[in-house]
Amino acid sequence: MMTQSVLESLRGTFAGLSLDGFIVPKTDEYQGEYVAPCSERLAWLTGFTGSAGTAVVLSDRAWLFVDGRYTIQAAQETAGLPIEVRTTTDCPMHKMLADLLPKGVRLGFDPWLHTPDQVGHLRRTCEQAGAVLTAVTANPVDGLWRDRPPPPAAPVVLHPLEFSGRDWRDKAAGLAAGIKADAVMLSDPGTVAWLLNIRGGDVPYTPLPLGRALFYRDGPKIDLFMDAAKIGDEVRDAFPDGVSFLTPGDLPAALAALSGLSVQVDNGQVPQALVTVLEQNAVKVINGADPCVAPRAEKNAVELAGCRAAHARDAAAMVRFLAWLSERTESVDELTAADKVWEFRSQGDRFKDLSFPTIAGYGPNGAIVHYRSTPATNRRLEPGGLLLLDSGAQYLDGTTDITRTVAVGSGGAEERRRYTQVLKGHIAVSRTVFPVGTTGSQLDVLARMALWADGVDFDHGVGHGVGSYLSVHEGPQRISKSGNAVALKPGHVLSNEPGYYKEGCYGIRLENLLAVVECPAPDGAERPLLAFEVLTLVPFDLSLIVPELLTDEEIRWLNRYHTRILAEIGPLLDGHAASWLVQATRPIFRGDQRLSG
Amino acid sequence: MMTQSVLESLRGTFAGLSLDGFIVPKTDEYQGEYVAPCSERLAWLTGFTGSAGTAVVLSDRAWLFVDGRYTIQAAQETAGLPIEVRTTTDCPMHKMLADLLPKGVRLGFDPWLHTPDQVGHLRRTCEQAGAVLTAVTANPVDGLWRDRPPPPAAPVVLHPLEFSGRDWRDKAAGLAAGIKADAVMLSDPGTVAWLLNIRGGDVPYTPLPLGRALFYRDGPKIDLFMDAAKIGDEVRDAFPDGVSFLTPGDLPAALAALSGLSVQVDNGQVPQALVTVLEQNAVKVINGADPCVAPRAEKNAVELAGCRAAHARDAAAMVRFLAWLSERTESVDELTAADKVWEFRSQGDRFKDLSFPTIAGYGPNGAIVHYRSTPATNRRLEPGGLLLLDSGAQYLDGTTDITRTVAVGSGGAEERRRYTQVLKGHIAVSRTVFPVGTTGSQLDVLARMALWADGVDFDHGVGHGVGSYLSVHEGPQRISKSGNAVALKPGHVLSNEPGYYKEGCYGIRLENLLAVVECPAPDGAERPLLAFEVLTLVPFDLSLIVPELLTDEEIRWLNRYHTRILAEIGPLLDGHAASWLVQATRPIFRGDQRLSG
Repeated sequence: MMTQSVLESLRGTFAGLSLDGFIVPKTDEYQGEYVAPCSERLAWLTGFTGSAGTAVVLSDRAWLFVDGRYTIQAAQETAGLPIEVRTTTDCPMHKMLADLLPKGVRLGFDPWLHTPDQVGHLRRTCEQAGAVLTAVTANPVDGLWRDRPPPPAAPVVLHPLEFSGRDWRDKAAGLAAGIKADAVMLSDPGTVAWLLNIRGGDVPYTPLPLGRALFYRDGPKIDLFMDAAKIGDEVRDAFPDGVSFLTPGDLPAALAALSGLSVQVDNGQVPQALVTVLEQNAVKVINGADPCVAPRAEKNAVELAGCRAAHARDAAAMVRFLAWLSERTESVDELTAADKVWEFRSQGDRFKDLSFPTIAGYGPNGAIVHYRSTPATNRRLEPGGLLLLDSGAQYLDGTTDITRTVAVGSGGAEERRRYTQVLKGHIAVSRTVFPVGTTGSQLDVLARMALWADGVDFDHGVGHGVGSYLSVHEGPQRISKSGNAVALKPGHVLSNEPGYYKEGCYGIRLENLLAVVECPAPDGAERPLLAFEVLTLVPFDLSLIVPELLTDEEIRWLNRYHTRILAEIGPLLDGHAASWLVQATRPIFRGDQRLSG
Repeated sequence: MMTQSVLESLRGTFAGLSLDGFIVPKTDEYQGEYVAPCSERLAWLTGFTGSAGTAVVLSDRAWLFVDGRYTIQAAQETAGLPIEVRTTTDCPMHKMLADLLPKGVRLGFDPWLHTPDQVGHLRRTCEQAGAVLTAVTANPVDGLWRDRPPPPAAPVVLHPLEFSGRDWRDKAAGLAAGIKADAVMLSDPGTVAWLLNIRGGDVPYTPLPLGRALFYRDGPKIDLFMDAAKIGDEVRDAFPDGVSFLTPGDLPAALAALSGLSVQVDNGQVPQALVTVLEQNAVKVINGADPCVAPRAEKNAVELAGCRAAHARDAAAMVRFLAWLSERTESVDELTAADKVWEFRSQGDRFKDLSFPTIAGYGPNGAIVHYRSTPATNRRLEPGGLLLLDSGAQYLDGTTDITRTVAVGSGGAEERRRYTQVLKGHIAVSRTVFPVGTTGSQLDVLARMALWADGVDFDHGVGHGVGSYLSVHEGPQRISKSGNAVALKPGHVLSNEPGYYKEGCYGIRLENLLAVVECPAPDGAERPLLAFEVLTLVPFDLSLIVPELLTDEEIRWLNRYHTRILAEIGPLLDGHAASWLVQATRPIFRGDQRLSG
């Protein structure tokens, strides 16, 4: 329970810092999806625990800006505090702030927690408001936070060639050939981990060692800036040359040594603080995308093989869970369901962690796209409703992400119609072949056509990229209606997750991971084609499918998919799960199709 | 036949202008698709008559930059001249020029013929090359061109409410409510014509009166800058107040009078020369899209009714042509076919002109996307090949654009397969329903899926906007894979023109115009839906369709479309054309469908 005294203690620092206000974002100095406990400044200050948000505290007012999914939670968690919650869904924070900030206010920010792009927005906001934006040298929250957890210090481990498939020297040589700057600031722990084939455990759900690297084109060689305590001899010995192990404290001096040279930074990822150091040392700063992002996305053959193996184990766990669920008659709720699917997964080889917090939403909770069950919202799985289960795991050899929606008891006619329409969209994306050069944005519509015909749709993208024992959300490719110029390439892994959500009633989402693969050329083909290989091998709920709404091709695709699941996952199962899978993967037909169809 | 002396005479002006080179673009001072004869500076200088290109003439070298469709034509037309033709398909002119321009060169340009966006590109090019870009005060070509045609002076005519459907005062009031600047520079004759409900005849194929307008938010009132000789009493009397009739020579003074106020200009359309005048007079210049473009695209009920009527007459002409062609046994070639289709169109009520040069490409010529038949390229329509005919007309009540591909004699198996695949894409776009907010870019893929399955594609967009007795190419909406953030709106008119081109063999394109219309909501619909109404009513060539490649829904769509054509166009025909249409619109079935299907 937060009290106003925390806000007041922050305000008490303003005079000494010559400030009238201060910005506290959720993000840490790595701009990652998940932050370590020591970086939960926003939760410490406001009590708000959502995954995204920013507080702006003035002497007499305070706002908490969150997107639409967190409006209610933010209000609940800040209840009793003099904080106004504002929803940014229709208007971004920086635009709202331009109207809210009083003229002449000096607004402080921590340049380690904001990127140059974000600072640019804030600067224009302050200009419009007649306010002054000022970087602080030390975050006042850190000085006030008495029981602040220590920085994470999980040991760094090697991610061996058996899983990574490509030596770091080979990756480094590829990078060096493609960059024009003398050095590149790699400020994303995920690309550092990819480049050096290392992993860690500093944040939940993603096996990241927090740290940065400077990549020098000549050599190429790498300075790694990471807490020495995290790095054991095995790791040091694995890099006999080419990599210098330094600490975060060494970074300013290393940047200063680049005076007169050019350094590439990603203005959407790097902290403003580092760019300021570069500029102060007369380093030529070149803005450019992190050069690891594109090659990291193109999984090599070893990574794809690991991905397939991880998906087989993950599918076995999911099938065990679904078989278990089908036998329960009572006493299952969202939280026990989430626990149970974790339990089955954790029995699998090479399992390390979940890849994100499990979404187990029953009935109306399934309609909340980013739902996370709590004791207060937890629902019993009564017959007659749908359970939406979106979950995934981190295995040493691959990262998974799957959503299945199942009928508890049996679904109604409307739910079956919508489920079948979502499935039609899912199948359309899975089946498509497309020429080299096609972007994910071009394919987005395929997932929506069947829903559009009924005047319904869903308000999220169709697919995101997925890492290889790294973040479950990874760029640069994606399938979404907003334009994305990144062409799909062999080795890209993407989710395919159309959905439908009826507020207050139920939610449906059907998600598989797909790998982009080369497609054999048909006779007369003039352009090289790509296609998707389905990685996820878990049956769809036949009780929710209306065969009469499916075309011959869709039924054929579904029956082939289920046949493949039985062949590949069946041998991993025994007992009830094995017999459940046989039933769950039986072929289906339309009334007008012959059984031989 | 051009001679080198023209180039040399231009070079002879350089010393007096303190220049080392000069840029001569195809565009005129209105950046329109077609230019008047007096603006054909590029053809005068180089002999090149294509619709797009730019010459850069230095003292000792000269280049002509054209896109891929004009590489061969440009080489032919400049043969014998010391001009190097460069193709810009893979690298834009300004990038090539950065490598070609010698250091220190002073390169002149006419600021009336380039927009601020274009000048920005040229300026960066010159900076990279170490060259200097300089605006001239008078175009040296104009001083040299002895037999230069006079400026066009076609009379301005009123475009009555019977066709325009909306009073200019109502349009002006709508504009005034949406702009923030004190005035808007309307520099596109097409938007001036739309706003004031006037038309003219200064350029081919588009009924434009060349001229500009200043739109003042207060009032609102309009200054029209147009040659007085073009404007008769009927036009003047139609605007008793709110519009001042001025001449182009009055424009600088009108702009100077705006000193201290703000003026919105479209940096992609307005000449740099006008922006310079504004800046010299301390006018605050605001870059923003021409505010007429969005409302002009949303055709009102009267415009749509006119569009439908024009399409019925156009369809009757096209059917007469196709029926005539089906009877010919010899002596038809591309040029006579194009003449004949013009002849049938010109017999229709309210016919004014073609809307673009007819493309009649037989056999290999059909594979040239922007083909225009000449005596040198003209081909006889021998049995066994395909004729691609892309043509359209300007009627007082609407603008048409249609492509049909027909077998001369009968088509081969490959041609029939490709024709059917193109038709499948065409039908997919026509049939789709989509929620309000959907962009044309989202729909592009629908036209390509059937071709992709065979590893083929086409390299142009699927659809462009079309004006109402205005330009046949009109923004802002379009259907293309390059991202376009413009949502489709009721009243938008678009082409739907997938194709397939086999170089050296044949080309296929199937084009109808579509209007975006509201779609009745299905039961349970949650979002308002839009759909396409097909405007073009001309049958597809049944001899080129393989029914076995079509789904039940596609066959049903095709049969319904042909039934509608017979019902709506049949009554406009008699004799052979009427009986031909009955045959051409007969229902088709797959072998496995019952005749009652």
